[in-house]
Amino acid sequence: MDGRSWDEPRKVDIVPGYQAFAEGSALIEMGMTRVLCAATVEERVPPFLRGEGVGWVTAEYSMLPRSTNVRTPRESGTGQVRGRSLEIQRLVGRCLRAVTDRSALGERTVLLDCDVLQADGGTRTAAITGAYVALYQAFLVLVRNRLLNEVPLDSAVAAMSVGVVGGKTLLDLSYEEDARAQVDFNVAMTDNGKLVEIQGAAEGAPFSRETVPEIISLASVGMEPLFRAQREAIQSITGRA
Amino acid sequence: MDGRSWDEPRKVDIVPGYQAFAEGSALIEMGMTRVLCAATVEERVPPFLRGEGVGWVTAEYSMLPRSTNVRTPRESGTGQVRGRSLEIQRLVGRCLRAVTDRSALGERTVLLDCDVLQADGGTRTAAITGAYVALYQAFLVLVRNRLLNEVPLDSAVAAMSVGVVGGKTLLDLSYEEDARAQVDFNVAMTDNGKLVEIQGAAEGAPFSRETVPEIISLASVGMEPLFRAQREAIQSITGRA
Amino acid sequence: MDGRSWDEPRKVDIVPGYQAFAEGSALIEMGMTRVLCAATVEERVPPFLRGEGVGWVTAEYSMLPRSTNVRTPRESGTGQVRGRSLEIQRLVGRCLRAVTDRSALGERTVLLDCDVLQADGGTRTAAITGAYVALYQAFLVLVRNRLLNEVPLDSAVAAMSVGVVGGKTLLDLSYEEDARAQVDFNVAMTDNGKLVEIQGAAEGAPFSRETVPEIISLASVGMEPLFRAQREAIQSITGRA
Amino acid sequence: MDGRSWDEPRKVDIVPGYQAFAEGSALIEMGMTRVLCAATVEERVPPFLRGEGVGWVTAEYSMLPRSTNVRTPRESGTGQVRGRSLEIQRLVGRCLRAVTDRSALGERTVLLDCDVLQADGGTRTAAITGAYVALYQAFLVLVRNRLLNEVPLDSAVAAMSVGVVGGKTLLDLSYEEDARAQVDFNVAMTDNGKLVEIQGAAEGAPFSRETVPEIISLASVGMEPLFRAQREAIQSITGRA
Amino acid sequence: MDGRSWDEPRKVDIVPGYQAFAEGSALIEMGMTRVLCAATVEERVPPFLRGEGVGWVTAEYSMLPRSTNVRTPRESGTGQVRGRSLEIQRLVGRCLRAVTDRSALGERTVLLDCDVLQADGGTRTAAITGAYVALYQAFLVLVRNRLLNEVPLDSAVAAMSVGVVGGKTLLDLSYEEDARAQVDFNVAMTDNGKLVEIQGAAEGAPFSRETVPEIISLASVGMEPLFRAQREAIQSITGRA
Amino acid sequence: MDGRSWDEPRKVDIVPGYQAFAEGSALIEMGMTRVLCAATVEERVPPFLRGEGVGWVTAEYSMLPRSTNVRTPRESGTGQVRGRSLEIQRLVGRCLRAVTDRSALGERTVLLDCDVLQADGGTRTAAITGAYVALYQAFLVLVRNRLLNEVPLDSAVAAMSVGVVGGKTLLDLSYEEDARAQVDFNVAMTDNGKLVEIQGAAEGAPFSRETVPEIISLASVGMEPLFRAQREAIQSITGRA
Repeated sequence: MDGRSWDEPRKVDIVPGYQAFAEGSALIEMGMTRVLCAATVEERVPPFLRGEGVGWVTAEYSMLPRSTNVRTPRESGTGQVRGRSLEIQRLVGRCLRAVTDRSALGERTVLLDCDVLQADGGTRTAAITGAYVALYQAFLVLVRNRLLNEVPLDSAVAAMSVGVVGGKTLLDLSYEEDARAQVDFNVAMTDNGKLVEIQGAAEGAPFSRETVPEIISLASVGMEPLFRAQREAIQSITGRA
Repeated sequence: MDGRSWDEPRKVDIVPGYQAFAEGSALIEMGMTRVLCAATVEERVPPFLRGEGVGWVTAEYSMLPRSTNVRTPRESGTGQVRGRSLEIQRLVGRCLRAVTDRSALGERTVLLDCDVLQADGGTRTAAITGAYVALYQAFLVLVRNRLLNEVPLDSAVAAMSVGVVGGKTLLDLSYEEDARAQVDFNVAMTDNGKLVEIQGAAEGAPFSRETVPEIISLASVGMEPLFRAQREAIQSITGRA
Repeated sequence: MDGRSWDEPRKVDIVPGYQAFAEGSALIEMGMTRVLCAATVEERVPPFLRGEGVGWVTAEYSMLPRSTNVRTPRESGTGQVRGRSLEIQRLVGRCLRAVTDRSALGERTVLLDCDVLQADGGTRTAAITGAYVALYQAFLVLVRNRLLNEVPLDSAVAAMSVGVVGGKTLLDLSYEEDARAQVDFNVAMTDNGKLVEIQGAAEGAPFSRETVPEIISLASVGMEPLFRAQREAIQSITGRA
Repeated sequence: MDGRSWDEPRKVDIVPGYQAFAEGSALIEMGMTRVLCAATVEERVPPFLRGEGVGWVTAEYSMLPRSTNVRTPRESGTGQVRGRSLEIQRLVGRCLRAVTDRSALGERTVLLDCDVLQADGGTRTAAITGAYVALYQAFLVLVRNRLLNEVPLDSAVAAMSVGVVGGKTLLDLSYEEDARAQVDFNVAMTDNGKLVEIQGAAEGAPFSRETVPEIISLASVGMEPLFRAQREAIQSITGRA
Repeated sequence: MDGRSWDEPRKVDIVPGYQAFAEGSALIEMGMTRVLCAATVEERVPPFLRGEGVGWVTAEYSMLPRSTNVRTPRESGTGQVRGRSLEIQRLVGRCLRAVTDRSALGERTVLLDCDVLQADGGTRTAAITGAYVALYQAFLVLVRNRLLNEVPLDSAVAAMSVGVVGGKTLLDLSYEEDARAQVDFNVAMTDNGKLVEIQGAAEGAPFSRETVPEIISLASVGMEPLFRAQREAIQSITGRA
Repeated sequence: MDGRSWDEPRKVDIVPGYQAFAEGSALIEMGMTRVLCAATVEERVPPFLRGEGVGWVTAEYSMLPRSTNVRTPRESGTGQVRGRSLEIQRLVGRCLRAVTDRSALGERTVLLDCDVLQADGGTRTAAITGAYVALYQAFLVLVRNRLLNEVPLDSAVAAMSVGVVGGKTLLDLSYEEDARAQVDFNVAMTDNGKLVEIQGAAEGAPFSRETVPEIISLASVGMEPLFRAQREAIQSITGRA
């Protein structure tokens, strides 16, 4: 639709350290989608983990009102975080926890704030991909302050959307493509090719189970530029450190 | 753990029409899990569908405080529907919409209330499976009242959980099994073998992509008794009608 | 209206232990009204009782959305428990406290959840009557666990509605009768004939003070089957214990 | 306790028209209890009455934070009207509706705001007694504006508390007396001796049913000064009009 | 408009000790505006001041629903304190803090509740002026109880509105005047002529900076009767003590 | 503190059109403070203006959680917009309304969203200054779409903070300077030297009225670079148009 081939992700760019007062942060752009991710370290864990000796990683997700074409009212007006936001922030939290060595982290929490400045599809996958860089930077601060021996991450994690639009499988849907998709998948994987999360839904009619492995393969290939951008962003921080 | 083999679902039982004042209802039991599903028909659609000539199917999900081993406080105390509840009710709504012929339904909404009376794992899959029966019964009422020519459902839909526990793939996890699962999948399918929704998450370590088709196959076989129980429940209503 | 004589209560049935994960529970049916009551024991008391050496008994009341003929929206959507629900749960709490030996209970709280599965009038009186059985069962658990020497209840408590409909005094109103009542009383009594609570309101015109003793007498006689059903339910538990 | 005999109510004083901008208002003092009542007329009815040709009377009740000895936090902080406030405002609304000729009122609502400036027991009974004067004044405004032919009130309504303290029946309890009561009644009656509402609760042990007629009689006698103060307040308005 | 000259404030009256159960209180009337102020002393400070050895003074502001010509709904219904109320209560708190010797106060908080019984313009300035008297009385209680050596107030504080209406500068605007003002100032000063707070806003067109000193002078002169009323109110308390 | 002279504002930079999907937007940076402003045009006015033939301009203000050194929890979690946010958004709305020709605008609303990405003092003044550019751009869109003949703005508006720190008057306080200020002013002016809003508060001790004209003069001079940056930003848009 926008000149890309069906298996070509949008251009990705990650600016680490965008928010100077946060322990870690990253501004990720995928096409016109822009998500600002910040990591906050707290020296405590939620009640259900107290005394367990392991850490916690969680996330919050929100959209600025004019990130979208039609203004989205603020959630603060209602006291209700929208269902979609809650679903996304739970997903982001799970994905980052899956690659964190929570025993090595110790009784600490890292809270990842993912705020969408501009939304053109794929904000949840961008949030996962960007939050990984913010998390890495926050862990580096803990290492530099000798609170940790090394960055407690087993692998990188990134995510990509895949859809079936007009019968064709497409990688990394923009908003307009997503609105027309019959099947909509979000796939989160590690940089060594393992699955962290897979969510697929029939937007229109139910779909054949044969398409699932195909979708995973396409997502896997499309994630390569994301892992590369993460590595470059992290190198620019560690070079600076 | 409870004497079942790894590919054997728990005993399912569906009582249609449990709530006499609802257009459709069903009490579903899967092992010790009990979910009460009710269907309400409203002669209107949400604002974004007005004038489109198609209907809507949506869901709400909640747990009674003592459905669980430790009491879960009511959501009404906080004005916040919990993230987990929102995630589940969005899932239930999507699954039922995927099998509904929304054009045939016309500008009507069916709201499916899924209230968990007792929770021993698999409440979201039980909710999907039971809500289908409540929805069917509500559609029958519309047909009997000559508001519809026939039940606008393309196929039945049911759902099943599959997990990897201690390295082994298990069907239909109870609460105790679920708490120990490394990988947790929920699969919703139609009775003609198509996928409606698939959600899989690494609870512990990331998992191999090869396990996904295997999990779908296991879920597919395990859903057979659910489709059978749905058919029997519906026959008992239509026989009665 | 439904074939009963004016002084004849509806058929009552109490299933103790309906919710397997609660310390105590009972499903009570009075005619078409069905209320699920669960008792939760907490080893603490509200702030105003700390250090006083006495316990507390309190209640929460809610209706499932399709317990009623027209769907009642969930209270969780608004963050406001409805006035009627609050009024009822305060009533249930007071009635159960009045028969509990709070010194013998010690610094513990029992919270009674009363959830209406189906509402055909008299849900508050059914909640009081059923909650007594759930409370008894929870106390038995404390006795069995040697946390109490004996069940700290001075007497049984049950409740019954009485109304004046079309000039005639009627016992145990169904929803349809209640909607047409000019005067509406709820009376809670112990099984030794003492009053625990009496609430009477003119729905239409003010009423003569002479009717009050008459209403109390009618309620008192009508409560006998309730006390009997409570005793049978408790015997079936203690026989099991 | 404060020098009164057991059957002697506290000194009552009613200032009509205290809030100059309201259609009707009254500041009622009973001993140290002070409640400000205001009546607002709206030319509409709640949805459930639209097109029925009858009016509605309702109430809101709140306490100023320092009406009490220990500061009571504002309800606006939590978005939750407290259970006690809701219970009282429902009671006030019912009592005033019971003496209003709602057909003569027509499709209008009168909202009675009862705000407690100082609380020394009996705020709900003072609210009912004072709200009657505010309601009367508001109806007079409607009559003067030729929206009504005459004041649509069948009789006056007032209310009085009666308690059993240390085995003795006492009229019109102050806060300190109320805190020590074993049985606590609130009785609302018309000035022609009919009952509008009766609510009695065992605070400690259940009580004998023989006490009920005795309590009603005592309340009835104690209400005479209230009806007199209402009549004087209304005469001072009508004289002014 | 109401017969006053342009530099003449409305008649002020302060009744100290209006709420008998509060540590300090005052009912202030300025023309038809009536605000009830109460002071509550708490032996703790907000978290950000713990261990700092200094006290805190804060305020809450609210209007009774029928203080205004058209009823203002209660904030408790929405769980949202209105922006205007928050703005005013922050202003009142700042003004009283500015004249309090917070070191001499020690780790205590005084909370000033300002509740508007009747609103005819200038409720925020009346709240500041009346709250000073309530605060003084509460400090006297602490002195009498030997918790403080002397009243920890550096000077009195009062406030006055000034507006530009139809090109003319007017002191102490009533509601009707305020609604027509082009420029609206609120000035809070000490009784030794220093500024505590100044807020001026162009309601219509921007205004010349030369008007600012002129407005301050007018406010300063107009505040004299307020300081006099405060002194008299305080003398009547201290004489009583 | 940061090398600036006392009368030197921080470096300002305005990027117009930062949010591609909004009618108008601007990212303003003042030193390390970064505020993202977006303008949304709605073809309706609030209820109190319906049928008046004039438009409305309003604002919302919020901070991203990690805009600050210590994370600020989201307001959406509580359903309460914080007092400080409400105060600021009301200020921003008033300032922009004061320079808008609301008759020329017609019955439309422009809502200005001001979201703080990074906070180092002066976020409210930056919000006013940046919102002006977003508003201008939105008006240009209305002109281009022939809904307006010309941009309905009478003049530019910008704002600047001035404080007294350690006895010295300082322009444009950073967070650290602001935290140590004894007196804190925010001044909003038009580019033709008129005042739109002035707010000054004694943070510590009351201050002399002679300082006010001095503070206004300093603010006036310091605002020149802001007006220049606004003009350049607007030229870059109109050149593009």
